[in-house]
Amino acid sequence: MEFSSKLLENAVYEMSQLPGIGKRTALRLVLHLLKRPVDQTQHLSNSLLKLRNDIRFCSNCHNISDVALCEICANPKRDESLVCVVEDVRDVMAIENTGQFRGMYHVLGGKISPMEGVGPQNLSIADLVVKGKEGKIKEMIFALSSTMEGDTTNFYIYKQLQGLPIRISTIARGIAVGDELEYADEVTLGRSILNRIPFENSLRAS
Amino acid sequence: MEFSSKLLENAVYEMSQLPGIGKRTALRLVLHLLKRPVDQTQHLSNSLLKLRNDIRFCSNCHNISDVALCEICANPKRDESLVCVVEDVRDVMAIENTGQFRGMYHVLGGKISPMEGVGPQNLSIADLVVKGKEGKIKEMIFALSSTMEGDTTNFYIYKQLQGLPIRISTIARGIAVGDELEYADEVTLGRSILNRIPFENSLRAS
Repeated sequence: MEFSSKLLENAVYEMSQLPGIGKRTALRLVLHLLKRPVDQTQHLSNSLLKLRNDIRFCSNCHNISDVALCEICANPKRDESLVCVVEDVRDVMAIENTGQFRGMYHVLGGKISPMEGVGPQNLSIADLVVKGKEGKIKEMIFALSSTMEGDTTNFYIYKQLQGLPIRISTIARGIAVGDELEYADEVTLGRSILNRIPFENSLRAS
Repeated sequence: MEFSSKLLENAVYEMSQLPGIGKRTALRLVLHLLKRPVDQTQHLSNSLLKLRNDIRFCSNCHNISDVALCEICANPKRDESLVCVVEDVRDVMAIENTGQFRGMYHVLGGKISPMEGVGPQNLSIADLVVKGKEGKIKEMIFALSSTMEGDTTNFYIYKQLQGLPIRISTIARGIAVGDELEYADEVTLGRSILNRIPFENSLRAS
């Protein structure tokens, strides 16, 4: 792409560094900002800078939080003995949206991925193990994505917790509610048969 | 969406104001920035702000330009008597990429659209008419998109220029090179038959 302006070229380049944003899309987004009042660009720039510079994490669950102890960890009604281990803030939001979980979270901040240079020391795993040893936690639910990295991370944490009196579970994988069996992939369908549940339990869930 | 942090919520909100970026995508982009060095967010914010604040337009063709007269308008080899009328900088870039055009451009900055509150006075139409009356321009090529707004804008300019000794043309519409006839829409196929060209001309073009 040949740009008529260096300023435009720079803005498009920086925008196109975001994941899933190609050069053309970046140009469209930047031109949109140019057509809008200067306020909008200022608000966008400031909110990104402010978040990046002032970001803080909950001292207990490591979720993004503006205060030292996040709302969930500070809530006395949540069950401290049940901890759901997730990758990032999106997973917390997704699970909270279901309204089905009254325990606490532990946000790892990623998955072990040697390819991307992420080792156990880059995640909040050591802190989770410390919490596990304190004895308050009775069950941990692993809710990482079922990829190779997710499975590796699950197994690494599982090994670290071995010997502790903590029940370890993973979220159920199976056919999505409302989906047709014939369109499901074999692995998922296979797992949902292996991990079948008593019929009465399925009545309770909805 | 329930956010655990106001800072995060603000950043996601501002990001989701961009066209085609929903809340989920905005969250993904913002979390990506959080995982990257703080530099990247600074570069993005600064380049957007700098462009928005320092943006300048070529005094002749109204294209985005860092200097008073853009590279194309300042080039003595370009044909001043041939002016291609386009909507924005993307069209200039697209036509320049073809390498088929040696004339000048006139960037309107949009199309007449009463629905979006864009009238002729919001576009650089008056300036184009002034240029037309100066007598240097022999031909204008309308290259706006063939929507109702594009057609309205073309017709408005055409009326303003009536009586001047300027040949007015529009770019050819037809089946894209390499496309199958059977998949083309009827309007396009119909136009490409109506506006057929001598066979020798098609040999010249490639």
